[in-house]
Amino acid sequence: MLDKLPLPIVLAPMASGATTPPLVAAVCEAGGLGSLGCAMHEPEAMDRDVAEIRRLTSRPFAVNLFVLPELETPDPAAVAAVWEILRPIRAKLGLDAGAPPPTKFGQSFAAQFERLVALAPPIASFTFGIITRAQMEALHGAGCFVIGTATSVAEALAWQELGADAVCAQGSEAGGHRGTFLHPYGEAMNGTMALVPQVVDALRIPVLAAGGIMDGRGIVAALALGATAAQLGTVFLRATECGITRTWKDALGRAKDGDTRVSRIYTGRPARGLDTGLRRLLEPYADTLPTYPVQLGLTAEIRAAAAKAGNAEYISAWAGQAVALSREESAAAIMARLVEGMRAAHDRLVMPR
Amino acid sequence: MLDKLPLPIVLAPMASGATTPPLVAAVCEAGGLGSLGCAMHEPEAMDRDVAEIRRLTSRPFAVNLFVLPELETPDPAAVAAVWEILRPIRAKLGLDAGAPPPTKFGQSFAAQFERLVALAPPIASFTFGIITRAQMEALHGAGCFVIGTATSVAEALAWQELGADAVCAQGSEAGGHRGTFLHPYGEAMNGTMALVPQVVDALRIPVLAAGGIMDGRGIVAALALGATAAQLGTVFLRATECGITRTWKDALGRAKDGDTRVSRIYTGRPARGLDTGLRRLLEPYADTLPTYPVQLGLTAEIRAAAAKAGNAEYISAWAGQAVALSREESAAAIMARLVEGMRAAHDRLVMPR
Repeated sequence: MLDKLPLPIVLAPMASGATTPPLVAAVCEAGGLGSLGCAMHEPEAMDRDVAEIRRLTSRPFAVNLFVLPELETPDPAAVAAVWEILRPIRAKLGLDAGAPPPTKFGQSFAAQFERLVALAPPIASFTFGIITRAQMEALHGAGCFVIGTATSVAEALAWQELGADAVCAQGSEAGGHRGTFLHPYGEAMNGTMALVPQVVDALRIPVLAAGGIMDGRGIVAALALGATAAQLGTVFLRATECGITRTWKDALGRAKDGDTRVSRIYTGRPARGLDTGLRRLLEPYADTLPTYPVQLGLTAEIRAAAAKAGNAEYISAWAGQAVALSREESAAAIMARLVEGMRAAHDRLVMPR
Repeated sequence: MLDKLPLPIVLAPMASGATTPPLVAAVCEAGGLGSLGCAMHEPEAMDRDVAEIRRLTSRPFAVNLFVLPELETPDPAAVAAVWEILRPIRAKLGLDAGAPPPTKFGQSFAAQFERLVALAPPIASFTFGIITRAQMEALHGAGCFVIGTATSVAEALAWQELGADAVCAQGSEAGGHRGTFLHPYGEAMNGTMALVPQVVDALRIPVLAAGGIMDGRGIVAALALGATAAQLGTVFLRATECGITRTWKDALGRAKDGDTRVSRIYTGRPARGLDTGLRRLLEPYADTLPTYPVQLGLTAEIRAAAAKAGNAEYISAWAGQAVALSREESAAAIMARLVEGMRAAHDRLVMPR
């Protein structure tokens, strides 16, 4: 499946509304693999977006979910404590500071998974955790090619053992949520350069390389390390077709190396994004904040209001470490630039006699 | 200078006795650039080792120093506090638990630098900080090609502005000390995949790529990212000619991905190595421990005694994140394997039509 792609380029399955059907389809039409991030989709939204992708392209595409345990009702005291910390920020952003905290958080993974099998996209990919053997069988029964995300050799082996068809090795440079599920996340912060060859050596199935790859040079580097394809997210965040807010896009455009941090304060799970005032304010509480998706829900209104107001200090602006290499262009122009950059990087290589 | 090397391979200038003259010379003779790590050398030892390298090879080599301010007398109370924490470990390792702490720490950078200029190696490289304009002029006057170490674009630009002839971009994967000097180290943990292209784009001088590069695949990846050469350290730690202890070498042989940590507990400066009991014991005090080289001196006897006893739990075992890809071989065999691996990785690359 992956080796039949015209281009070894995968659009990372970014949630937060980034991977719109037009973006997914544009990457597919250009010869890459577009991925729809459905982590925050209700099943009906999955139906709608997958149908739109199928209208826009006949090429293979991927649908991604976050593997999560069924939601438990969060501890009201923990929720109230965070709500209290957030109150002054809510007031500053013009939100009702007296409002009670939300009571509904996230989506049901079981319901999303059931819809995924029914939709039977050519490729199903997963982050955050690992699925069950029965779920793997259901996907294979539906004809899906299954990709798991790993941040260590052990996680990659766990996916292979379960029957995954490929693994995405996520280096520490990557923007967005860390996919770590077998270790404390800080113990699985291997850079892409170190992680990919170790995963390639350990597996017999194809490996995608993710993390810090922003142009043709990075794609050739990923292939040299033994990856079958490179998975790029941040470079597509400023694509015309990308669905993130203008505030987020503009913040990406101003970013330099060193401007990102990994933190769990936004969603309850460690994720890399541009540093913000919100992070600096909440970081002292990082270890005690509720888990995903409860913290995600508690900060949602703040992040949305800040984005609407053009205030980048209180948004979550996921971004990888090479964000400074991004440009605002159409997805087709980005894809063309990636291919041109691959050829140029390859042509520059001089091997020892 | 760098583009005239037969092979785009640089032996990282590892201190701790790793880069012996035979190792440096073997890398040079194989067509790479050997580097002598002199951070812990007294000027007389620099004389001795450089003379030995010159006996062993007529090819260009590099000498590296840590740029450090002149040593101040450490605060006796801070020293005594650490000494108290270390006392039970000293007792456990059979060291005199009643002994007073050492009073002499490290070497004089001014004296090392003066000797460096007198020795005038073909290449002088620096880590930990940046030299002065007068020092740069002295090195250029002596005919040295000067390489500075950078962990961010800003640090790379600072070296170029000063007149450096090349910059080594050190990714977060790298073993040993972090070279960060313009930022808190945690804000300059860019992975090699993200760092190198950003530094290459910012500079007009050549860039070396370091961090996580362990074989021919990594070297080709580094070149694809735009580096002129790849700097490898960890892969040479298990070379026959490498001067590190048997305890350290054996620990490297057992290591897996995820086994390294960055910590300042060993030396007072953040450095990446295999995790140890010593680190877990001292990590709670990490922020209050004395700076380099005071903490280095305070832990020296413990690390030496543990190494002698074959106890890897109390040594400093610097290692990069891809340490699991190392093998015990002669330097010549390693160099041959790197070149073979480069050709194989290059041959596997398939570019889009």
